[in-house]
Amino acid sequence: MSARLINSIRQLREAIAEARRAGRAIGLVPTMGALHEGHGRLIDLARAGSGCVVVSVFVNPAQFNQKEDYDRYPRPLAEDREFCSARGADLVFAPGISEMYPREQLTTVDVARVTERLCGQFRPGHFRAVTTVVAKLFNIVQPDRAYFGEKDAQQLAAIRRMTLDLDMPIEIVAAPTVREPDGLAMSSRNRHLSPEERRVAPALYRALQEAGRLIASGVSDPAKVRCAALAALEAHPKIRIEYLEIVDPDEMQPVDSINAAVRVAAAAWLGPTRLIDNVLCQSPAS
Amino acid sequence: MSARLINSIRQLREAIAEARRAGRAIGLVPTMGALHEGHGRLIDLARAGSGCVVVSVFVNPAQFNQKEDYDRYPRPLAEDREFCSARGADLVFAPGISEMYPREQLTTVDVARVTERLCGQFRPGHFRAVTTVVAKLFNIVQPDRAYFGEKDAQQLAAIRRMTLDLDMPIEIVAAPTVREPDGLAMSSRNRHLSPEERRVAPALYRALQEAGRLIASGVSDPAKVRCAALAALEAHPKIRIEYLEIVDPDEMQPVDSINAAVRVAAAAWLGPTRLIDNVLCQSPAS
Repeated sequence: MSARLINSIRQLREAIAEARRAGRAIGLVPTMGALHEGHGRLIDLARAGSGCVVVSVFVNPAQFNQKEDYDRYPRPLAEDREFCSARGADLVFAPGISEMYPREQLTTVDVARVTERLCGQFRPGHFRAVTTVVAKLFNIVQPDRAYFGEKDAQQLAAIRRMTLDLDMPIEIVAAPTVREPDGLAMSSRNRHLSPEERRVAPALYRALQEAGRLIASGVSDPAKVRCAALAALEAHPKIRIEYLEIVDPDEMQPVDSINAAVRVAAAAWLGPTRLIDNVLCQSPAS
Repeated sequence: MSARLINSIRQLREAIAEARRAGRAIGLVPTMGALHEGHGRLIDLARAGSGCVVVSVFVNPAQFNQKEDYDRYPRPLAEDREFCSARGADLVFAPGISEMYPREQLTTVDVARVTERLCGQFRPGHFRAVTTVVAKLFNIVQPDRAYFGEKDAQQLAAIRRMTLDLDMPIEIVAAPTVREPDGLAMSSRNRHLSPEERRVAPALYRALQEAGRLIASGVSDPAKVRCAALAALEAHPKIRIEYLEIVDPDEMQPVDSINAAVRVAAAAWLGPTRLIDNVLCQSPAS
């Protein structure tokens, strides 16, 4: 069956109210479209856990730091809708900008500390825009569960904390990063990579894996782990590292010593394209 | 019938879910307790409009600028519960601090511009704390309607804007300020006034009324109106004006010229007690 495409908040609320009356739990998968297998797994999870699956597709201008990145962000809505239908989603909510921002957005939701480092340091205002638009989507859909990928680990941590701190009655479900056969994390931005860039891109994940191996073997000094991971990237001068940090998985703060689970997270530029990736690493001390 | 006193979020949600299943709409009256007739009218409105009336009583430490003010804020919970019962409220939600803030509150909700002037200028962080705790209460109760007094006009405007901007499916209902026979706006802080302070306190409202008369008579220069209102207060040196401004009622920004409805809002100190009041004024040009 084809997923129903809805553009207005009012119509979406009506469709959701109907599903609720029929006793169906609501699962929300918030996306910016250009759906790939990573999103597909989120929809599968939602399908398994909720009677009514809503996929939102909204390229949120407020969370882009560069107009160019926003302008060239892919928007293949017809394909996205087909993708959602094939995965069994019930509703595709694709509002226009004036539907989401009918007036100047004076209200913002901020999550301190969690959003301070990593991407937060290099993308001022990005997470504020993400948590604000997700709060809006949560209030529009009022889902029982919402699904996010671990690839955007800092986003996931910020949304988890927002949900807890603001007492939102929503279960946040995380899904593992889905990778191409060579290890590259799936991302809507991968399609911007040139063939040469695409060839070297998996080195980012291999560097994170190297960090994971050291941590698993008992190395507890984050500086050592960091150096080894960066050294693994030196062979690829096309990859310009923006950050590579070892942080605690909840508040995303750098750790002094690795004696519990940590996330090794990195951002890198390949030409004009910015990629992020991360791995959760278990320390033998934990 | 006695209103049921509930301290935990979990129990409150269960009680509300039960009311919902019975088809009752939920009305929320958020308060800091020390209830007076102003709150009483809010409860009456909620009673008339909703099948299940929840009164929250929580003295939110985050929104106080002075520890002394927080410490001496009255907390007559047994009386408050009786008051709620007499007015026909169903549930009194009186959580402890650790129930509302079980972990460090990293997430905040901000409403820009609306909260910038007036009290916002003199109470840094106050409105952020108000909108954050109200967002929490809204997510805990998920009311159909929430009731606020016009006495706290800037708070009301900020909450209205937050609700719109974040797409909260909640109707904000405002109730007129309730006054003592001599015009003093009812407030939980009035009980701190000495007999002498209490005697002169109504001069604040009289000054606002004077502003209203000038505006109704067609004076459109806000500076003139302001001067006249301040002059009316000069006879009372015990009253120290913190601000007196003429603002638009939605975004609470000073107006250049009065040609639509405006709010004349003031804050004043009487000894150690800070009082606020405001009047909505119609211009003959509107």
